[in-house]
Amino acid sequence: MVYILRVNMSDLSIKKETVPEKYQLMGGRALTSHIINAEVDPHSHALGPNNKLVFAPGLLAGTPAPSSGRLSVGTKSPLTGTIKESNAGGVAAQKLARLGVKAIIVEGQPKDDKWYILKIDNEGGQLLPADKIIGKGNYETGELLRAQFGEKAGVISIGPAGENKMSAASIAVADMEGHPVRHAGRGGTGAVMGSKGLKALVIDDTNAPGVEIKDKEAFRGAAQAFSKMLLANPTCGTGLPTYGTAVLINILNEAGGLPTENFKRGRFEGAEKISGEFMYDTILARKGNPTHACHPGCVMRCSQIYNDAEGNYLTAGFEYETIWAFGADCCIDNLDQIAMADRLCDDLGLDTIEMGVTMAVAMEAGVIPFGDGEGMLNLLKNEIGKATPLGRILGQGAAFTGQAYGITRVPVVKKQGIPAYDPRAVKGIGVTYATTTMGADHTAGYSVATNILKVGGFVNPLGTEGQVDLSRGLQIATAAIDSSGLCLFVAFTVLDEPEALPKVADMLTAQYGVKVTVDDITELGKAVLRVEREFNTRAGFTPAHDRLPEFFANEPVPPHNTTFDIAGEELDKVFNF
Amino acid sequence: MVYILRVNMSDLSIKKETVPEKYQLMGGRALTSHIINAEVDPHSHALGPNNKLVFAPGLLAGTPAPSSGRLSVGTKSPLTGTIKESNAGGVAAQKLARLGVKAIIVEGQPKDDKWYILKIDNEGGQLLPADKIIGKGNYETGELLRAQFGEKAGVISIGPAGENKMSAASIAVADMEGHPVRHAGRGGTGAVMGSKGLKALVIDDTNAPGVEIKDKEAFRGAAQAFSKMLLANPTCGTGLPTYGTAVLINILNEAGGLPTENFKRGRFEGAEKISGEFMYDTILARKGNPTHACHPGCVMRCSQIYNDAEGNYLTAGFEYETIWAFGADCCIDNLDQIAMADRLCDDLGLDTIEMGVTMAVAMEAGVIPFGDGEGMLNLLKNEIGKATPLGRILGQGAAFTGQAYGITRVPVVKKQGIPAYDPRAVKGIGVTYATTTMGADHTAGYSVATNILKVGGFVNPLGTEGQVDLSRGLQIATAAIDSSGLCLFVAFTVLDEPEALPKVADMLTAQYGVKVTVDDITELGKAVLRVEREFNTRAGFTPAHDRLPEFFANEPVPPHNTTFDIAGEELDKVFNF
Repeated sequence: MVYILRVNMSDLSIKKETVPEKYQLMGGRALTSHIINAEVDPHSHALGPNNKLVFAPGLLAGTPAPSSGRLSVGTKSPLTGTIKESNAGGVAAQKLARLGVKAIIVEGQPKDDKWYILKIDNEGGQLLPADKIIGKGNYETGELLRAQFGEKAGVISIGPAGENKMSAASIAVADMEGHPVRHAGRGGTGAVMGSKGLKALVIDDTNAPGVEIKDKEAFRGAAQAFSKMLLANPTCGTGLPTYGTAVLINILNEAGGLPTENFKRGRFEGAEKISGEFMYDTILARKGNPTHACHPGCVMRCSQIYNDAEGNYLTAGFEYETIWAFGADCCIDNLDQIAMADRLCDDLGLDTIEMGVTMAVAMEAGVIPFGDGEGMLNLLKNEIGKATPLGRILGQGAAFTGQAYGITRVPVVKKQGIPAYDPRAVKGIGVTYATTTMGADHTAGYSVATNILKVGGFVNPLGTEGQVDLSRGLQIATAAIDSSGLCLFVAFTVLDEPEALPKVADMLTAQYGVKVTVDDITELGKAVLRVEREFNTRAGFTPAHDRLPEFFANEPVPPHNTTFDIAGEELDKVFNF
Repeated sequence: MVYILRVNMSDLSIKKETVPEKYQLMGGRALTSHIINAEVDPHSHALGPNNKLVFAPGLLAGTPAPSSGRLSVGTKSPLTGTIKESNAGGVAAQKLARLGVKAIIVEGQPKDDKWYILKIDNEGGQLLPADKIIGKGNYETGELLRAQFGEKAGVISIGPAGENKMSAASIAVADMEGHPVRHAGRGGTGAVMGSKGLKALVIDDTNAPGVEIKDKEAFRGAAQAFSKMLLANPTCGTGLPTYGTAVLINILNEAGGLPTENFKRGRFEGAEKISGEFMYDTILARKGNPTHACHPGCVMRCSQIYNDAEGNYLTAGFEYETIWAFGADCCIDNLDQIAMADRLCDDLGLDTIEMGVTMAVAMEAGVIPFGDGEGMLNLLKNEIGKATPLGRILGQGAAFTGQAYGITRVPVVKKQGIPAYDPRAVKGIGVTYATTTMGADHTAGYSVATNILKVGGFVNPLGTEGQVDLSRGLQIATAAIDSSGLCLFVAFTVLDEPEALPKVADMLTAQYGVKVTVDDITELGKAVLRVEREFNTRAGFTPAHDRLPEFFANEPVPPHNTTFDIAGEELDKVFNF
């Protein structure tokens, strides 16, 4: 039986609910966003008892579909005040799907300050005391939980940042080695989990019934064909497995779109020393692993194991955005310091993008100087990690830190830190930052693909023409992919290979026994955006919020010396569909 | 010549401009709100070069009209993000009016970190270096400026809070003794002044031409009649001069509407020890002055001189809201500690309402215990005063502090702290808090008058009936009064004495030589609200923001155990005019 698990933290009750008809062909983001919009009053305090936290594997989770292990986390964001979906890799989604868990809805709030573990297995869910892991980082939490519940248990957890309800707090999902390096990072989902008194979820899929596939043969055929296309694609089959996402450092630097020194310029003099190529060489020299999958069945394997100079494990899932944020944006060119920042964020449970952007704002405020890698690590470990007043400022993110210090050059949209692509040099991504339902988010409509990587055609990154149409199409497609459970990186193939998306439709058709067309997938994407917009509108968001901070319009960014000059009325056309 | 002084801090230019026709019959709030709406892009960062700060005396300022010395300060608020008008007593407005200054518009931003004094005299304005007063509190700033520019100079200044761009920072206006105790308190106007590099304004009205009155005799007659009515009114003529606004402590406590322990209940066990009656006795015993005017010509004289136990001056302008905020809301019943908090806020340049509400939220977060008066003074002096990280959290106000500590019971509307009347026990004021263009503000439509004091009729404070109409009428009237330069306390007379408002119309008619009717005054109030709403709408505010925090609907407040149960659709009718 496929079911929804409803966990009420106010009375500690757990219910298995049948999946309503309308949610049958939804998964991942489609499901989290529909549930949040239907069940949460947009006026609720994000950290109060009336907000909810929803976990949902994608539609293809738990099947042999390649790279289909994304787990969506949905809630009202304490960072942005908008609806939020943030998804992560790791092993949890597939285990949940195999157990028949369509979604977990966590609601209410414990009346006392008790903390809980939600254990999910073939019997259902139960709440257990979390006393022994409270205050622990995600690494130790995972070790203790696997010691208690078995080495194969899937772990979802928050670190001290989530316990302290910081708006930059993430939810960590352990990967195949049990490392807590895959995160539902953006928007403070970890703070919501903390507000629910939930320290961790443990998923034991022993004797799980597995996912029912109506037409196994048809599914296998479509999955194999899709897999083959992914492997044949230069980005998905070669670029990502070799260099990981950090391959983008040199590319964006060359394009003049690598935000440097808190978005003052688009090229970083130390780019080479933090590049994917440099990282690859370093990993090989230290006997790490440059090519690593975050969940079973991923064929793109963009993760890696990054060892320290002594050859000991330091971090994994070391992404371009993280390296940019703590690197170029903070003028730090020491990859080991950046790797340690990544490790600390994984352990404390913090969004690396938000924290890197925050550090650069703190540097602009003079808290520490630009380029001070050791100072940055100290802030992460001893201020944020210990929840000192300064740590509580930084842990609330870039907008908050900017306000605390009276800084006006704060790169955020809807209070969420702007990621690793300067919107003045890559204008298509600026359209996405401004308009997405999520606050500044590159994954919501990755126009960089077409602006810079020339995937899915080419739209001049420095021009204003075509950017709105580009972002609209990508936002719709992304909402659909985020609902499927497929990793967004399949888009590099889908955008250039006309036969790829039909294979996704074929897999869904074979699995659910209902004809799903490519048009249905597009319509699902549109439906997701519509409910997200509906929530945000009811929460008080208007086109006035779909704008970049004024300094992007007023300050030209070198080397191209361009500003973000797409008019507000143009941005307002993104959702004309 | 009456003129507008435009001060550009980017190029340090100062221009005298003729007053446009449309602004001739505007003053105070009407003028600041119209100018801000016309000249400031609502998307501008409140602390950036594109925000402006406008000072405007009221229409009757500088005339012999009683109690007409209010100075309006308008800007886009860094606290709320809305348009903001905050007005204060003190001597500045009358001096400016006598010099012919209709308004001062401060715009731009110094390119370096230099600080300036704006000196205004019969020649116009000039910018002088402020090096010697930077970092000083408002008390010492005033002393140094009067030593430099003469004892009669009017001083407007910011303290360290404004220099540090804290969202709770106020602008101080010195009273007749030169004490910096009258503040444009709410909404962070002081931070905007700080962002302009302006530490102080000094006004020397030597040889000022004075205010032209077209029909002196008619004016004198109307002014005298109006004055007589004020003195005959029990509140204006007796209550306020005797006990000051603190007379409300016992009244609100009795009504069960005195928010206590961060709005957990409506009665404070220590109310008697912080009451107006107790304060009156204390002042007399210490040879202070219970009855004191904040500017020449005020007949209500609600201010006082409060001495310490040794009989030395401690503070003045010691208001009900201040005593409530640091008293009942923080469970502190030591009036001397509260007076010291008032003094520290005056000196640091902080809004006492915002700071008291913030302290209660910090107490809820466990930063210090409820009732810890010495701890509170320490936070003000050594954390906020020294701009430590904790001070930077608290100095940004209640909403910010609540977020830093993950507290959900945070009494704010549009991020501005809710003042001294519980909206569950005095529902008419709840309507005003929710809907005013200013963020939670009691003065914007003081329904307490009719709900509790039975001025202007009676509307049951615990019922839902009639509250929206009451708030609407008061918000319109207040916007007009705030434009006249009259102290809002004249409303106690105006609401009960049908002949009072016609006298205001007669004064305006006599002064400006243009027929002004009571209807014209009402229309002016409506026009003010309309431009303020227009600005806020363009800034992205919607009816979704015109709501109280959810805990007021969900948590009944003792002793009446009532919630705020006026529906959102009803609140949305406030601006139906």
